[in-house]
This record gives sequence, C-alpha cells and structure tokens, in this order.
Amino acid sequence: MQRYFIDQSVNVGQQIKLPADVVKHWIQVLRGTAGDQAELVDRQERLYLAELAADETVTILSECTAEVELPIHVVIFSGLPKQDKAEWIVQKATELGAYAINFFSGDWSVAKWQPNKVEKKVARLQKIANGAAEQSHRTHIPTVNFVGSLKQGLADLRFDHLVVAYEEAAKSGEKAQLMQVLQQTHPGETFVAVFGPEGGISPAEIDLLKTEDAIIAGLGPRILRTETAPLYLLSAVSTVLELSKTQK
Amino acid sequence: MQRYFIDQSVNVGQQIKLPADVVKHWIQVLRGTAGDQAELVDRQERLYLAELAADETVTILSECTAEVELPIHVVIFSGLPKQDKAEWIVQKATELGAYAINFFSGDWSVAKWQPNKVEKKVARLQKIANGAAEQSHRTHIPTVNFVGSLKQGLADLRFDHLVVAYEEAAKSGEKAQLMQVLQQTHPGETFVAVFGPEGGISPAEIDLLKTEDAIIAGLGPRILRTETAPLYLLSAVSTVLELSKTQK
Repeated sequence: MQRYFIDQSVNVGQQIKLPADVVKHWIQVLRGTAGDQAELVDRQERLYLAELAADETVTILSECTAEVELPIHVVIFSGLPKQDKAEWIVQKATELGAYAINFFSGDWSVAKWQPNKVEKKVARLQKIANGAAEQSHRTHIPTVNFVGSLKQGLADLRFDHLVVAYEEAAKSGEKAQLMQVLQQTHPGETFVAVFGPEGGISPAEIDLLKTEDAIIAGLGPRILRTETAPLYLLSAVSTVLELSKTQK
Repeated sequence: MQRYFIDQSVNVGQQIKLPADVVKHWIQVLRGTAGDQAELVDRQERLYLAELAADETVTILSECTAEVELPIHVVIFSGLPKQDKAEWIVQKATELGAYAINFFSGDWSVAKWQPNKVEKKVARLQKIANGAAEQSHRTHIPTVNFVGSLKQGLADLRFDHLVVAYEEAAKSGEKAQLMQVLQQTHPGETFVAVFGPEGGISPAEIDLLKTEDAIIAGLGPRILRTETAPLYLLSAVSTVLELSKTQK
C-alpha cells in the first residue's frame, strides 16, 4: 500500500485536505479515485489508514501500530563524499533505518560544498530521504544536515554512544567493539557513527574523536568504501537489535 | 597498499612478468618504480608481497596470511534489475564478501537481457567485481553469471542452505529465520540467498523455492529495495559470523 508523510497532526475520524504533493502523486500519477486507501504518517510519526474521498480530501479510518524504526537512534556522520555518493548514502541509509544523516567537511574530503550551494544541496538530499522513507515504509524521516566540521557537528549534538569506523581497525583485525557497544545500548538512545570521506579520517579527527571517548570499531575484515560502510553499520544494528534468535 | 589479482600460480622467490593490465595501472597510472611494493593474489587465492623490479617484472618476497573472506560461501541470486542497479549490486556485494553473484530473469523482472547481449553485459559486470575485489582487499573474486531462470540457476548449483528474502516476510514481522539458519552454518558451506527484481518474487517462484526447502527470511521490518536487500544480508552474515562478542 502507498504511504505518504503529511506535515500535520491528525486523528481517527477526521477528514483532511491532502497536501499538493500527495494529490499530485496519488491522484494524478497513480490515478487514485474515491474509496482507494493509503497509509498516512502524521507529524507525530503516527501511522493511519486513510480513504480517499472526493475533492482531494481523505478520511482517517484507523490508527495502525507499526514497529518499523530501529530501537536506537542511529545518527550517521559522513565525511563529505562526491555528490552522487551523498545521494545514495542518504537513500540507502534511510531504507536501512538511519535516524539522521549529517555530512561534514572532512580534513581529507576531496569534495567541497560552496557555502552558497549548501542549502540547495541539503534540500535535494532531504527530498531523497523523504522518498526513501515512504518507499521503505518508515514512520520517521531522517533529517539530512550539513554540519560544517566534525568538531562542530559533534558539539551541536547530545549522544549516548559514539563509534568511528576506521580503516586501520579493519586492517588490524579489530572485531569485538561494535558488538560490545551494541549490546550496551538501550531503546531510544542516540548512537553516533562516524565515517570518513574517500580519503579517510585524518589523525587530527581521530584525536578529536578520542577526546569524545569514541570507540574505534572494525566492520569486518574487508576494506569498505566510504558509501558502503554506513550501510554495513546500519545492517549490523538491525541484525543485532531487531532479528531475534528464537522463533517468535 | 595496492592489490592486484594475477591469473597464474606463484611461489616465494620467483620472479614473474606482470600482466599487461597490472603494468598499465601500477607503472603507468601510479608511476611505480623499481623497489615499490604491492600485494599480489594468485590463481590459488594466495596473497603475496611483491617488489617491482625493472623490465615490468616483480619478485615474490613473502606469502601473507589473510582472513578476509566470509567463512561461508554466500551466493547471491538477484532477479534481473535495471542495468545500473546490477552494476552496483555487483560492486557492493563484492565489497561485502559475496562468493558469487548470479542474475536470473525473474517472472516479474521489468529488465530483459537480449540473448546476444548477455556475454558483453556479464563481462562488464565481472570487470566491476574484479575492481571491487582489489579495492576491498579480497583474495577471492566473485564470479558473476547470468543463469537464465531461477529454476535453471538452482538446478546447476550444489548448495547447503537456501534463503529467500520475501517482502511479505518483512511485512508479517518474521525475524527469527535468518539468525537461525546462520547459526546452523559451518565454514566452507554454500549459502544461497535469493532476491527478487524490482517487481518482487512471483508466487510460482516462491513455490519453486519451497520445493527446494528454501527458508523464507525477513531482513528487519523496513521494506528494502531490490539492490539494498543483498547488502543487508551480506552485512548480517558478516556481523553474525565475523564480529566476535568478546575482546580478542
């Protein structure tokens, strides 16, 4: 069933006017007609079943329960990669359950974002996140931000766990840290995972992360590209925290 | 350090002539000179440290031990997706440790490969796998194949475990099967994981898989795209089988 995010709070029984972008997709693209149903996620991240009426309005039929979000809030910090990679990190990380995606200008980032272009680039990435959240049937849309430097981004955020994926950890065979920190998490906590750009994390950035008590974690013995490592991390979080070991 | 695959068996102390593609990259692109070192993986998937000599030859200095391959052989069956997605499934699945990647023409595949173009398309995908295997520091290059139908592909393969990622399993909240089957694997076994194309797996294909005793597994509660699901699966295999729970 099609899912749309709407920027208002609703209640069961209410009849609401659909926003223009939903009208465009549901009625013009999918040719929805009166009586068709879709899922709506409201501003409070509540999921409803809604039925299309005439005049581009819907009736909210019922609230659905959905456990589609990771139990912890995983905030991805990605050193600014080349543009198309940023787009696909956002799309895939959204599908895999990221809570927020922050890009920072890494010491060794080859890509640079001109200050006057940041707003437009972030808006484009946010739109990709919105689409991916709908398609993957999430109730939370990850926020996409450009936070300047890693230092600035971490200073602006309160978090419970901080992990950095470091190529040298993979090379030295580190393989216990990620599992250990995941087993220490509690639902609702914020878990920050930092990934370097194509050039990697600089020694100065590693020093900064150490002063923040970051845990240096290996993500298996293969060297992952900058756009692949966050996807491994998110899949690992889901595997450990969402897949159960016994038949439910 | 740069890594190259060479299509011959070598021994420590031997001096060999470099293949043309390695000469091109190491000497012409990277401007390697006598005394520079690189890693070579030979036809037996053994890893060696080698030193560049004059005349486009290298001396094999020593054998390295490397545990970079997943303990089980994960064979991805991917319903034929659109072309650029096939490329990126191959690149990312190689980084994440796939043993082989087989594309099949799914009942609901929108993309079709013309018979006279298959060879060229597979060759292109194989080249992507080779490059990704080098970059991710693997010792095994996944073989890429087009196997026609799912039925044909499974008939041609001997395997120990068969799992299918089915969207309905995610929707119904199935979350125990993947972990269970992974915990029953033994090193060296062949683990086949089947993914539908964009349109999904057809009921006829599910029936076929059931006659092969396939396990229907959920990959977490979010709906993953056809190109994302194999990456989740491979990351989950690594998380469960490679990341240890205790400090090494």
